[in-house]
Amino acid sequence: MKFVVDQQVEDIEMPENLKLNTFLQEFHSDCTHPECGFGFYGFAFGQSPFPVPRLIQEALIKNANKGEYAAVPGIPELRNAISKYNKHYFGMDVSPDRIYVGPGTKELIFNLLEILHGTVILPTPAWLGYLPQIRFLKKNYHMLPTRANKKIAPNDLRRLALRLQDRQKILILNNPHNPTGLLYNRLELEEIADVCRDLNITVISDEIYAQTTYDFTKFTSMGKIYPEGTFVTNGLSKSHAAGGYRLGYVIFPQHATDLRAQFKKILATEYTAVSTPIQHAAIPGFEISHEMDEYFEITRNIHKIMGEYTYHQLTAIDGIKATKPEATFYLLADFNAYAPELQKAKITTSQKLSEAFIVHPYHTAIVGGDSLVLERTDFSARIAYVDYDGAMVYQKYRDCKPKTHSERTEFVTQNAPKIVAGLGMIEKFFGALKKDAVDELLLLKNSVKIPN
Amino acid sequence: MKFVVDQQVEDIEMPENLKLNTFLQEFHSDCTHPECGFGFYGFAFGQSPFPVPRLIQEALIKNANKGEYAAVPGIPELRNAISKYNKHYFGMDVSPDRIYVGPGTKELIFNLLEILHGTVILPTPAWLGYLPQIRFLKKNYHMLPTRANKKIAPNDLRRLALRLQDRQKILILNNPHNPTGLLYNRLELEEIADVCRDLNITVISDEIYAQTTYDFTKFTSMGKIYPEGTFVTNGLSKSHAAGGYRLGYVIFPQHATDLRAQFKKILATEYTAVSTPIQHAAIPGFEISHEMDEYFEITRNIHKIMGEYTYHQLTAIDGIKATKPEATFYLLADFNAYAPELQKAKITTSQKLSEAFIVHPYHTAIVGGDSLVLERTDFSARIAYVDYDGAMVYQKYRDCKPKTHSERTEFVTQNAPKIVAGLGMIEKFFGALKKDAVDELLLLKNSVKIPN
Repeated sequence: MKFVVDQQVEDIEMPENLKLNTFLQEFHSDCTHPECGFGFYGFAFGQSPFPVPRLIQEALIKNANKGEYAAVPGIPELRNAISKYNKHYFGMDVSPDRIYVGPGTKELIFNLLEILHGTVILPTPAWLGYLPQIRFLKKNYHMLPTRANKKIAPNDLRRLALRLQDRQKILILNNPHNPTGLLYNRLELEEIADVCRDLNITVISDEIYAQTTYDFTKFTSMGKIYPEGTFVTNGLSKSHAAGGYRLGYVIFPQHATDLRAQFKKILATEYTAVSTPIQHAAIPGFEISHEMDEYFEITRNIHKIMGEYTYHQLTAIDGIKATKPEATFYLLADFNAYAPELQKAKITTSQKLSEAFIVHPYHTAIVGGDSLVLERTDFSARIAYVDYDGAMVYQKYRDCKPKTHSERTEFVTQNAPKIVAGLGMIEKFFGALKKDAVDELLLLKNSVKIPN
Repeated sequence: MKFVVDQQVEDIEMPENLKLNTFLQEFHSDCTHPECGFGFYGFAFGQSPFPVPRLIQEALIKNANKGEYAAVPGIPELRNAISKYNKHYFGMDVSPDRIYVGPGTKELIFNLLEILHGTVILPTPAWLGYLPQIRFLKKNYHMLPTRANKKIAPNDLRRLALRLQDRQKILILNNPHNPTGLLYNRLELEEIADVCRDLNITVISDEIYAQTTYDFTKFTSMGKIYPEGTFVTNGLSKSHAAGGYRLGYVIFPQHATDLRAQFKKILATEYTAVSTPIQHAAIPGFEISHEMDEYFEITRNIHKIMGEYTYHQLTAIDGIKATKPEATFYLLADFNAYAPELQKAKITTSQKLSEAFIVHPYHTAIVGGDSLVLERTDFSARIAYVDYDGAMVYQKYRDCKPKTHSERTEFVTQNAPKIVAGLGMIEKFFGALKKDAVDELLLLKNSVKIPN
């Protein structure tokens, strides 16, 4: 039997992170080099390496017997906890009524894009999950390329929005930002909010990395700056190292009562509610406690140490630039200074660069610029610095906090050898490239191909 | 700020079961009768009353630490277990590759409707979840009303499909059937499959109640009869009393390899994967064990006892007909013989009948025909017979299995007093209606209204 698939399904591509991860899982046994016993240095997959907080695990254990369906917007205890969490950490007064729980921020953003009419404005570079959603939903969209500082330029936003005919425009703001690791400060958010107010732009502010902000006092939520027009999304995945639990939430704009009723219908139509035991487990993750507070502090400090090391090692390589991360566990590396050499080596796109990096002897997994909604020929890449044993590193940090620059470097070299070695491979790769070791690279490049 | 909502979102209604449940939760305090200390007799919400099986709870407890993202189609151990489960219980050889796990059968059916082009054929009466999905996705659809026996008539299916212009037609088959509790036997499925083969009709066979079939030897999966054209969905929600866990699966048709790749993209785009601890928890629920086998047997036997009692009590009331359930925990009651009296009492639709039943002194919650995709003036209703303490009743049954008809009646009257009393209320309602107690009914009817 032949099946007919809807056209927009055919047109979208697999989200690149999952495509790459599938590829990497299958890659090891495919390595063509004899006696190669090594998988790869993982700079590609953006997953927090730490254990799920003890309080959350214990709450899941206690609630394993909860087999009944939960209320569509989430159980009241959880919505209350999230409300208090937002007050305590982000200084926002959000009544629990404005909070809806969903099976991950990804699905909640998808649901928002389903119900909100209008044209989407997507600043680039961007997280690799937004574009497949926008395409699948056949929404009108426009890219908003950022400039040298990699942040939305309010005037560019204004110019673009003025050109759009749609009654409603939806800006996807991601703060702190994946893949750059950059943070929008209060003033920058206010300037963006001014444009949004003027031109009736709705904001979906994906703040899943909020809690990872290295200097936490610097984080400001767009929900505070532009409460009447912002949907804030956040969840367990990054700050609580529980991406696999699948629990996120969205805060609705002030006064959007009717919209919440519409949203509830969609959740009820598509998935009923989030897993009940998982909702109960999440409660202590959002409640204020010394233990969670310490967890957030330790994990963000470790991310900061790894980020600083990665940034310094990369930018020490001749010609390589990178964003200096202020949050998340990513930075955006810029290899465009090597464009002539790369082209000489027949590496003409960022996808081909990813392929060249993954093969023996480099074994280094990165997410190329085309997956970050950059031009295919933009030799930028997202470097995630989480390839270490999170449980061990957490304990080590807790036992003895590195204080000086040299202690922090020592902390990385001792505890994150794959990050150190992987960065070494990046240096080696570009060293070989400079030495016109083109033949060797070509040979390697042809031995493997990331599937589309 | 005013938000613009997509038109199809405005057009769909809240799935009726969730709407009703929300209403019922809020109803108690609203009861206008002084000194009324009672909520309602719950014939409306279709949730298994039993505890989540011990093996599943224990597996969830053991896997609370699994914070990492799972593979998009499900973890291999779970897909293997589901494959063996289908072999053991349903006699189907399904390779794990053909099995995709999702956050509930509801979302998987939604995802199938998203990717499959074509016109949907929806036999009626139907589960209240399909239509909002079909409408939201703006799919073409046609009802296929069943005849007196409440089952799809193959010739009617053929006639309808011949009229449809679409390249692909999708039949939604629900077997065992919600709301009728009826089971399609092998011959009936073969006749339907013949039409489907002839006219290139794809089948989504929602078999979530398969394991509840009272005489389990009688259940046949459409996946066995029409393997090349059937998507079979099933999950934990009904047979494992874990609707709140949110885990279902779909078996793809034979040879639909490309379609699986398309489907995987959609899952990755919308929700990444099902909660990892929940997936691990589900494994022993699908593995073959004496304990699960006993659980299935006891729970289906209790459903059978409650169903037989409910059927006999209802049909003993003058003029009331009902389907005789062979599976599930529902039957479809037909009150149309009272249409003249109901109309005299200004109860002109099934929605109004539901409202009249819920008020004091009847306090009886049913799902009216309009929510089952029947005509608004069809006085039919779904009666779910699960309003009892599942843990207690399970233990009682296990300790001493009722053998004779009178022991089974005794079992219900002793252990399910709310079912007994609720059925008494239905009898009382129609008794009052017959006695022309129209004024009283009118008065009650106006005191409460289920929100739209």
